[in-house]
Amino acid sequence: MILILNPDTNTDSREFQSLIGHLEALKGVHHRVHQVFGEERTLTEIYLIGNTSALSERDMAELPCVQRVIRVSDAYRVLGRHRDDARTSGFQYNGVTFSQDSFHVFAGLCAVDNPTNVERMFAALQANGQQCARMGAYKPRTNPYSFQGHGKDCLPWVFELAGKYGIRVVAMEITHDRHIEEVELALAQTGNPTGVMLQIGTRNTQNFELLKHVGRQTRFPVLLKRGFGITLEESLNAAEYLASEGNSHVVFGLRGMKSSFGDPHRNFVDFAHVPTVKRMTRMPVCIDPSHSVGIRACAPDGIPDLVHATAQGVVAGANMVLVDFHPEPERALVDGAQALTLEELPWFLEDVGHAREAYEQRRRAAERQRLAREAANS
Amino acid sequence: MILILNPDTNTDSREFQSLIGHLEALKGVHHRVHQVFGEERTLTEIYLIGNTSALSERDMAELPCVQRVIRVSDAYRVLGRHRDDARTSGFQYNGVTFSQDSFHVFAGLCAVDNPTNVERMFAALQANGQQCARMGAYKPRTNPYSFQGHGKDCLPWVFELAGKYGIRVVAMEITHDRHIEEVELALAQTGNPTGVMLQIGTRNTQNFELLKHVGRQTRFPVLLKRGFGITLEESLNAAEYLASEGNSHVVFGLRGMKSSFGDPHRNFVDFAHVPTVKRMTRMPVCIDPSHSVGIRACAPDGIPDLVHATAQGVVAGANMVLVDFHPEPERALVDGAQALTLEELPWFLEDVGHAREAYEQRRRAAERQRLAREAANS
Amino acid sequence: MILILNPDTNTDSREFQSLIGHLEALKGVHHRVHQVFGEERTLTEIYLIGNTSALSERDMAELPCVQRVIRVSDAYRVLGRHRDDARTSGFQYNGVTFSQDSFHVFAGLCAVDNPTNVERMFAALQANGQQCARMGAYKPRTNPYSFQGHGKDCLPWVFELAGKYGIRVVAMEITHDRHIEEVELALAQTGNPTGVMLQIGTRNTQNFELLKHVGRQTRFPVLLKRGFGITLEESLNAAEYLASEGNSHVVFGLRGMKSSFGDPHRNFVDFAHVPTVKRMTRMPVCIDPSHSVGIRACAPDGIPDLVHATAQGVVAGANMVLVDFHPEPERALVDGAQALTLEELPWFLEDVGHAREAYEQRRRAAERQRLAREAANS
Amino acid sequence: MILILNPDTNTDSREFQSLIGHLEALKGVHHRVHQVFGEERTLTEIYLIGNTSALSERDMAELPCVQRVIRVSDAYRVLGRHRDDARTSGFQYNGVTFSQDSFHVFAGLCAVDNPTNVERMFAALQANGQQCARMGAYKPRTNPYSFQGHGKDCLPWVFELAGKYGIRVVAMEITHDRHIEEVELALAQTGNPTGVMLQIGTRNTQNFELLKHVGRQTRFPVLLKRGFGITLEESLNAAEYLASEGNSHVVFGLRGMKSSFGDPHRNFVDFAHVPTVKRMTRMPVCIDPSHSVGIRACAPDGIPDLVHATAQGVVAGANMVLVDFHPEPERALVDGAQALTLEELPWFLEDVGHAREAYEQRRRAAERQRLAREAANS
Repeated sequence: MILILNPDTNTDSREFQSLIGHLEALKGVHHRVHQVFGEERTLTEIYLIGNTSALSERDMAELPCVQRVIRVSDAYRVLGRHRDDARTSGFQYNGVTFSQDSFHVFAGLCAVDNPTNVERMFAALQANGQQCARMGAYKPRTNPYSFQGHGKDCLPWVFELAGKYGIRVVAMEITHDRHIEEVELALAQTGNPTGVMLQIGTRNTQNFELLKHVGRQTRFPVLLKRGFGITLEESLNAAEYLASEGNSHVVFGLRGMKSSFGDPHRNFVDFAHVPTVKRMTRMPVCIDPSHSVGIRACAPDGIPDLVHATAQGVVAGANMVLVDFHPEPERALVDGAQALTLEELPWFLEDVGHAREAYEQRRRAAERQRLAREAANS
Repeated sequence: MILILNPDTNTDSREFQSLIGHLEALKGVHHRVHQVFGEERTLTEIYLIGNTSALSERDMAELPCVQRVIRVSDAYRVLGRHRDDARTSGFQYNGVTFSQDSFHVFAGLCAVDNPTNVERMFAALQANGQQCARMGAYKPRTNPYSFQGHGKDCLPWVFELAGKYGIRVVAMEITHDRHIEEVELALAQTGNPTGVMLQIGTRNTQNFELLKHVGRQTRFPVLLKRGFGITLEESLNAAEYLASEGNSHVVFGLRGMKSSFGDPHRNFVDFAHVPTVKRMTRMPVCIDPSHSVGIRACAPDGIPDLVHATAQGVVAGANMVLVDFHPEPERALVDGAQALTLEELPWFLEDVGHAREAYEQRRRAAERQRLAREAANS
Repeated sequence: MILILNPDTNTDSREFQSLIGHLEALKGVHHRVHQVFGEERTLTEIYLIGNTSALSERDMAELPCVQRVIRVSDAYRVLGRHRDDARTSGFQYNGVTFSQDSFHVFAGLCAVDNPTNVERMFAALQANGQQCARMGAYKPRTNPYSFQGHGKDCLPWVFELAGKYGIRVVAMEITHDRHIEEVELALAQTGNPTGVMLQIGTRNTQNFELLKHVGRQTRFPVLLKRGFGITLEESLNAAEYLASEGNSHVVFGLRGMKSSFGDPHRNFVDFAHVPTVKRMTRMPVCIDPSHSVGIRACAPDGIPDLVHATAQGVVAGANMVLVDFHPEPERALVDGAQALTLEELPWFLEDVGHAREAYEQRRRAAERQRLAREAANS
Repeated sequence: MILILNPDTNTDSREFQSLIGHLEALKGVHHRVHQVFGEERTLTEIYLIGNTSALSERDMAELPCVQRVIRVSDAYRVLGRHRDDARTSGFQYNGVTFSQDSFHVFAGLCAVDNPTNVERMFAALQANGQQCARMGAYKPRTNPYSFQGHGKDCLPWVFELAGKYGIRVVAMEITHDRHIEEVELALAQTGNPTGVMLQIGTRNTQNFELLKHVGRQTRFPVLLKRGFGITLEESLNAAEYLASEGNSHVVFGLRGMKSSFGDPHRNFVDFAHVPTVKRMTRMPVCIDPSHSVGIRACAPDGIPDLVHATAQGVVAGANMVLVDFHPEPERALVDGAQALTLEELPWFLEDVGHAREAYEQRRRAAERQRLAREAANS
């Protein structure tokens, strides 16, 4: 059960304390307070957990400060999309808006290699009007003897270069609690030239200790990748770990599922779930065509499968695209086989633009259809 | 190895007989003659099977009637897309063209129920400018005690109604050799008012005896659905069974793979393979969003997941869409849960049109990119 | 709903006709009569299909000839194991008993190659006290250009050799209706020297037309292999197709599921389902370790994985083992990589014997445990 | 490449320093020193990593202290079983031997609930001659709002009770670096009454940061569970992470794979991989039938599927069984549905004993077969 409080409820007020007093008297029910600090006002929600089935919605609605009561299913309390659930979704970070209506491309390097290539990448992004990028510093690798990324050492110059070229948000995978501190330190050392979206990869989707740690900080938004080997529902539950600890600025990432049925692609592309995740939760949805497809082969129309997969995600409403480029793919330290070249960036963005425009047209047509149906029924 | 003969080679000519004599003298090598009768000329190809690795391409090119020699890999001899393989793809049937560039929607009933609903369906299709439809008469069902379709009894009136409303091609699943004869008989009885594309479903993808039987007739083109539980390569090999027996008028259908990773969809949508199949073979590619998605749930943008999935297939170049409609989905005998309503047909076609238009734009952009790259390299 | 009639009910009797008259008067309910001709008496069961929920068990029990009434769930009416279902299971064929308690090894050739090897195989089986064998004549192959088996031509000498060496049941895959006639013809031509268990392979598990055809004959028992790509429940439903047409002499075969999670084995071994199938149905359960494992690699204990897998199936109560041997595996036309050698046959049978003996001990221990628990509870 | 040094090589010796000097001079090659302290002597191995293909085995064998040189494939350097690899496997911990020949049952509680039940469990284990147990204190749960285990609070009394009843090794899942310290602290506080085998669960199989941390300590052996959603090879690589950091006292655990093909079992039982893991690596292999099967349903022989699955793992040579019991399964906090009752413990151990005895017989028969074959070949 969620109690939506009146906007700008003061948590120091006597009324709020009275509300909390009531809640603490409930047997078998815990509560957690979530606050969302908007530009204009502060929204406070209280999540009641435990034996809430015995509570009356009407009784709860009469408690002080309470504007509205939502009874939620057990799953995805915070991030889910519940019946009669008009809570706003999405968030702003470092001047960029992320929601189920927004659209951003995060092109970049799967693995940071050297300042020259990173700078070429950022410069190309700026030249093409982009303000987001992906940069991999910590690389989890299947084989312990493989290159594992440059780690914290590269962070200062990556962030400085990002700032130099106007990049506002860098998506970056982390794999351990301490990486957050390392990111914070590098940002502080370089004067916070850019923002960071913490990315949690598919191998850590159910690393609940890491999720809890990341969920306890609210400075950085989080991109949680779907886990392979588990159901969509289990991955959405993992996102809820972040939110249940306090950070609901979460983007959910589709990156393909391991299955030989996806061959010759590296993974089985799962972008048909873009609308599904938007229906089940209020999270913006990201697609990662590079890791999903993993090869550069082209159809006879001259378009690589991975660009086709991108268009498929975008035409169905994806809000974010994570895609690997490299100035010299054949020299990339990791995943060069799936990277596009810098020369292909403008064309890639045009291609994506056509798919996004088609999505907008489709959305408008559906809206017209809805209005016509309502008119017919009334 | 494939020998492409000079156009309009006469198989009664002495030269052709001489060529065959040479081929029969080759040890450990069989040959099969394939002829494609076009409107203007006849193309003849000879497939050499067996121990062809020892043959010299130059020697074979000097045999009588031979225009060109293509050395092919073992897989997909007839339907595959081989290196330096400029064979035309696609075919015409009953006035409708099917190729890797064409685009047709086959809307209709998963299971024919009664003449009233079938007529309403055909009338709606005609009113919306369609000349193709799907109609299920033979329904394979998991449970032996479930409704199995009206079978041959419904064929005459289905075909008559198709003809009445200008439908030129009806896609129809068959599950046994004798169904071909039943279809032929019903067409003859009704004066051939329409055409039929024989559809082979996912449970019979590796029913090789059925494939061979269907492959031996060349009157009807074939839509072969991908098999669940097997790899893409194995399904493409199944298509080659049809072609190896003589019928290369084959459309390949993607219909989702069984996997709990696709939940809450009925199957794991596999439309990222649209460009892949077009690259690996010369077959037109069909998508079946109804069976892939299997539910009618909508994203917050008001568009059902199955319509999103359709747009995903189309934006990546699908050549054919098989989709279930029903005048009253809740009364459909089979698969009502996934059917769209007749009222939604115009809007569905508009939605699909936006995706197809985006595909065309994307293809043109890729062509410009190709030309620019060639100009830069020259 | 199943009506168990009094033993030796005469279907020509007035009482039986009266019963049928009652059943025909039931609205929305069809019936099918199944008869099992035992050595001593004939058992008759009537399956009521359709809207049986409205029928009273008590009313039905009072109809003439009816001994007992079993209300069954929709699934697996004939072959299922229903609550309070004491119907006997198993059957006899050509002097060999098949039930959930029996145990037989069917060793042999995956693909019949020549009379010499077939004779060596049969002779070795006889020398080791075996009366069953497997012999593949019709081989479904993924690639249309691969060797497809010797087909009907080899049947006469295979059957004659089987008879010569005292083999009473040969398991043989068929893939088309006409193969039954070919088998019947070859048996007739050779004087019925042996018996045949018709085997339906994993590619045809849901080839319902073939299942119906095979189910309509009752001369040969059937071994139905589980289908890859579908759930266990769907495969059990396929077995029910055979029974619903009249042939309930069905053995269910586990042969591994296609999944990269089974690597380095050819398939993901599924023998943990041996007890599961015995619980859900009354069918004897066969395991096929050769196709499941598909490689000959040995553990450090010197035992090949496929022999370990065999022991795993047997220790859990498997009733039948289908296993590939070959006098010269490296020269086998098909699947040589997984075949054991003839020299290994005695040792293989000893290994299997240890596992079977362990199963018997385990069963006796469970029985003692059950009796002790009942004593404690009474 | 691995250099096996002479037994009891002193790492302070001048010869050893000379060897290290040589190794440091090799370009592009790193080295790591692994020492195994046995009861009688110390074994030292040096792993050369990097560009070792250019090194000559003969040259390396002539370096000081080197007894033997093994060239290894890239995968599983430390834990793998390489050609001509006679390194001993297995280890001793707290008086208990773990190897590919040993056999131990770890029965216990999936989730520690209260001292009464824990004590009943340990007492029952002691009464049945067991010296190992499983006890879950840290429980990763899919849903963030589910019970997550009692954590560090229960450790002191769990360890004390273990010691009281003579339990020498408790297998216990950990999910974060700090849990090791918590375990160490609780052991110290209670006077080290027992030993602990750190267990890493399937959700953390590729949590490489946790693996590295656990691998850096050598006090506790590790049980690494196979990861769902990844291949066997990837899971074995994860084990190698532990070893590459210094801890090669690793047991590998099979626990079923997520797949709807395993229904009605909770997971698809993968115990056919028991011999496979023993062939590919030198790790002892554990099976977890409780989580694999996840239900208590019985076959008609009165034996639950999960006991059948246990016997299947054991008859193929499993070295360790992890199985859930509970005094009152219906009151268990977690996974009660799959727990056996304490009353069933003696019978379970008898059942397992039959399977283990069959394995021993099978191993002896294979050994006789090997000797006979060698005699025939010589």
